[in-house]
Amino acid sequence: MSAPRLVGVLGGMGPLATLDFLQRLLEASGARRDQEHVPTVTWNVPQIPDRQLALAGGGADPLPAMLQGIERLNAAGASCIAIPCNTAHAWYEALSAHSRVPIFHIVDATVQALQAAPQPPHSAPRIGLIATRGALEQRLYQSRLEAAGLEYLVPTAQELDQFFMPGCYAIKAHDIASGGRLLALSAEALLARGATQLVLACTEVAIGLRHAAPELLALSVDPASALAQACLRHWKQG
Amino acid sequence: MSAPRLVGVLGGMGPLATLDFLQRLLEASGARRDQEHVPTVTWNVPQIPDRQLALAGGGADPLPAMLQGIERLNAAGASCIAIPCNTAHAWYEALSAHSRVPIFHIVDATVQALQAAPQPPHSAPRIGLIATRGALEQRLYQSRLEAAGLEYLVPTAQELDQFFMPGCYAIKAHDIASGGRLLALSAEALLARGATQLVLACTEVAIGLRHAAPELLALSVDPASALAQACLRHWKQG
Repeated sequence: MSAPRLVGVLGGMGPLATLDFLQRLLEASGARRDQEHVPTVTWNVPQIPDRQLALAGGGADPLPAMLQGIERLNAAGASCIAIPCNTAHAWYEALSAHSRVPIFHIVDATVQALQAAPQPPHSAPRIGLIATRGALEQRLYQSRLEAAGLEYLVPTAQELDQFFMPGCYAIKAHDIASGGRLLALSAEALLARGATQLVLACTEVAIGLRHAAPELLALSVDPASALAQACLRHWKQG
Repeated sequence: MSAPRLVGVLGGMGPLATLDFLQRLLEASGARRDQEHVPTVTWNVPQIPDRQLALAGGGADPLPAMLQGIERLNAAGASCIAIPCNTAHAWYEALSAHSRVPIFHIVDATVQALQAAPQPPHSAPRIGLIATRGALEQRLYQSRLEAAGLEYLVPTAQELDQFFMPGCYAIKAHDIASGGRLLALSAEALLARGATQLVLACTEVAIGLRHAAPELLALSVDPASALAQACLRHWKQG
């Protein structure tokens, strides 16, 4: 008999996005009583050097703190690990190499969800990719979207500076109203340039849009939800 | 140098109440960036036999599953443990004896918050205690309120059967609207019988009232919030 399945969550990046992911997993399960919910163990320790700064070459290395989380989750008995933070996936290979149990890749889960989503009837779908500058420069999403034959466009440098970055940091500081307005502007700029679907490839974006522009969520695939679905499938197969 | 402080959370009772507690802890911290939030490790494994059934003498023993959670949280490096579930405190002594690190008692945290709350000017305060039948029969709150010289009243058997119990299970099944209405009726019955303050001594109650009767929250001390404050003090002293 194998050990019971237990979803490990490497959180803290940021702490609010971690709770948002756990909430999504809880809602996805369709449980009618406590015992039917997906069991989780969550390392939500935000004392990790800033990932966006590190990717830009300007900050301390966040990898040791992330590796400690991976170790602790393995020690606590996790049977798989999810990381509800896109930028952190820049370190995916190193984290995976360090983990006894599999780590689900958030972009693989997203591509699966995009391929399953309804497509516009008369034109090829174009994906508007909302992501951190670090994630864009790492080509975290682009390489896998191209491999899957999916067309996409990304925010301009100006949109990143004026809308996305300040919106993202406002959400982290728990100013959901201002952050939501800025992130909605970032999404609308992509739609104005021809996007037909959105990928909300930074865990703060869905939190902001749900508050400021919930109508855009119907056009969106949210990698955090796609990752929650992957965790739910893992648990149900146990 | 001592190990860094890390708040362990024994959750799963229920999983939604656990997220609610984590959300409160996050809001209590007043953090302006990720790294200022309280670090937590949360065991949110709801595959634990029903605590209310067990206290009523009718179900499997939940203690072994709870002890496993305490072990894993100690193994993961927690420097203290909080249990955001009132009923689970019926097993507090056994859990404490099993833990290397201290477990905060939710009622001690609540008495501290009641003593700090503003009092009505012209009459002695009377506390309306909303709690599970099991917690009431265990005298979990009553013994400590009496020791602190605080007057209180509790729901009648009829109020428990008609309002509190179905309200509580509706919230667990994620039916916040129905659950909230039932739990508001339970609170209003205590106020009609002379209560001047409420103690929301079951983690589902505040979730329900916030939805259905937010005006009652101003009269209420919420043990989950009091427990979050105790965790925050622990972290700030580290």
